[in-house]
Amino acid sequence: MKTRQVLLAARPTGWPRPDDFAVAEAELPEPADGRILVRNVFMSVDPYMRGRMNAGKSYVPPFQVGEPLTGGAIGEVLESKAPGFAPGDLVLHDFGWREHAVLDAAAARKVPRIPGVSPSAYLGVLGMPGLTAYVGLLDIAGMKEGDVVFVSAAAGAVGSLAGQLARLKGASRVIGSVGSDEKVAHVTGELGFDAAFNYRRGPVRDLLKEAAPDGIDVYFDNVGADHLEAAIAALRPYGRVAMCGAIAVYNATEPPPGPRNLVQAIGKRLTLRGFIVSDHYDRFPAFLDEVGPLVRDGKIVHRETVAEGLDQAPEAFLAMLRGENIGKMIVRL
Amino acid sequence: MKTRQVLLAARPTGWPRPDDFAVAEAELPEPADGRILVRNVFMSVDPYMRGRMNAGKSYVPPFQVGEPLTGGAIGEVLESKAPGFAPGDLVLHDFGWREHAVLDAAAARKVPRIPGVSPSAYLGVLGMPGLTAYVGLLDIAGMKEGDVVFVSAAAGAVGSLAGQLARLKGASRVIGSVGSDEKVAHVTGELGFDAAFNYRRGPVRDLLKEAAPDGIDVYFDNVGADHLEAAIAALRPYGRVAMCGAIAVYNATEPPPGPRNLVQAIGKRLTLRGFIVSDHYDRFPAFLDEVGPLVRDGKIVHRETVAEGLDQAPEAFLAMLRGENIGKMIVRL
Repeated sequence: MKTRQVLLAARPTGWPRPDDFAVAEAELPEPADGRILVRNVFMSVDPYMRGRMNAGKSYVPPFQVGEPLTGGAIGEVLESKAPGFAPGDLVLHDFGWREHAVLDAAAARKVPRIPGVSPSAYLGVLGMPGLTAYVGLLDIAGMKEGDVVFVSAAAGAVGSLAGQLARLKGASRVIGSVGSDEKVAHVTGELGFDAAFNYRRGPVRDLLKEAAPDGIDVYFDNVGADHLEAAIAALRPYGRVAMCGAIAVYNATEPPPGPRNLVQAIGKRLTLRGFIVSDHYDRFPAFLDEVGPLVRDGKIVHRETVAEGLDQAPEAFLAMLRGENIGKMIVRL
Repeated sequence: MKTRQVLLAARPTGWPRPDDFAVAEAELPEPADGRILVRNVFMSVDPYMRGRMNAGKSYVPPFQVGEPLTGGAIGEVLESKAPGFAPGDLVLHDFGWREHAVLDAAAARKVPRIPGVSPSAYLGVLGMPGLTAYVGLLDIAGMKEGDVVFVSAAAGAVGSLAGQLARLKGASRVIGSVGSDEKVAHVTGELGFDAAFNYRRGPVRDLLKEAAPDGIDVYFDNVGADHLEAAIAALRPYGRVAMCGAIAVYNATEPPPGPRNLVQAIGKRLTLRGFIVSDHYDRFPAFLDEVGPLVRDGKIVHRETVAEGLDQAPEAFLAMLRGENIGKMIVRL
């Protein structure tokens, strides 16, 4: 049996280009004992994948040139040689960027079909990005009732849940930064943020000051750079930063300047803490128990931007890096 | 009764100059009920005082031009109108930069005379700088047995105790950064650090890499700037930074660039935490119980650089900012 997959054709320098990717056919082996054959239904494109396209070591090993990319995918079991898995089962796994995969059942997580919720939710609000928002806000930033919470990339997969969770957990004010006026409307409308600004309309520091005149207590950082500097300026004593991502930095060929005001962390007793969601998979059950019903009942809104077909996956990845998606960027296979 | 005190004559811009200070006579009131008259024996000059000379708000209110400076001092009670205080008592208080003070007894801490230990120790290893090292290393950085610990300004009042405590608490390696070859010898000799370097001899990043080829787990930051950037590069996963001071930054008129590699905090899951010792005075008894005997028994070495007389206080302060002291800089009154 044959399938199609996306290879890393070349390591990008700065912004990736379409010809850094190539779609190729591949032969699928018969599933051996303990393995399953899966038809992928949706695959994910996420910011962290950009880091893996570089040669240098990151917190996950780099992709190899000429090899297929990997990443979150949700699929249907077609054939199973593993106990506990049957054809038709829905499984979440890490062999995205391909139409079919043969994998160890141990590397797949069986997930329930939730009536009224697309399986693609397991790549976003109920998956890795959702868990990232949950852990970052509650465990890393230690958000408490009454906090003023600022979230960057607030219309993205992680940011949109972080902001909504903050609101549901009793934040006194939730502020989002986004990259377009359309997203400002989405975030303050559908998602219920108290305020949002389009960071392209001025210095982030000024825009944040206007949106949070009394300062902030928690910053959920998906962007880094000027956003982080602005947040440090706005943070009140004992403020906390969950350092989750730095999309402003990923495609930089020169390291951008660090926050010039980091010294304020001393006087304001700030805590800045970086984290990687894969350290926190033990929180997945608690997360799913809490957020699953909120999604099912419509108390948490999750938008998706869906690209169609494997051939569109590289472009979907690039569009996501450029911030063209609202909500989770997904590829339907 | 008259006394002499040091006033802030002008707000310094950048590095303070001698004529930003003035010594003046002042009339002392009779101590009212609840107050004591103290003859100061030693006064302290500390880096944080530089911030208070600026007009802008810091974590402590600014000094006022034309008014006497304040700061840690240890003195002998001459006259008491307060229960529990008697002439001859040794008291630690915050009315330094003057030869005598009349103050509320509630603002003075009575401390014991320790045989063989100069009362000036209460301004250094057994006082605010000592508590800073203790809280920063143990509570803020959460130093654990086996950690590799890096301390900047390691020959200073805070750094020299932080490094020695790390060693006594089972650090696998303690590395110090200092500003002269003489201090390298002091820190690796008398203080028992495993390694030290003179940061003036090359890029801190290279010097630290040489001293800690396998990386570090804890960075006790008294310097900021290039030291912090070098430490972020050297920190291993789950590393922690206690942000205590930024002496490299205090006299800067332009904010220096922040650490360009702060984004590494995400992949390495670093925690950077700023703190102010005055939030942690509840730890003073535990600190004194633990560190007092170590000092008395000579297990912790504390050197002092002593200037003589109130007129020398401004110059002692400046020399300390230039890093000319070894151990705690003290003024004998």
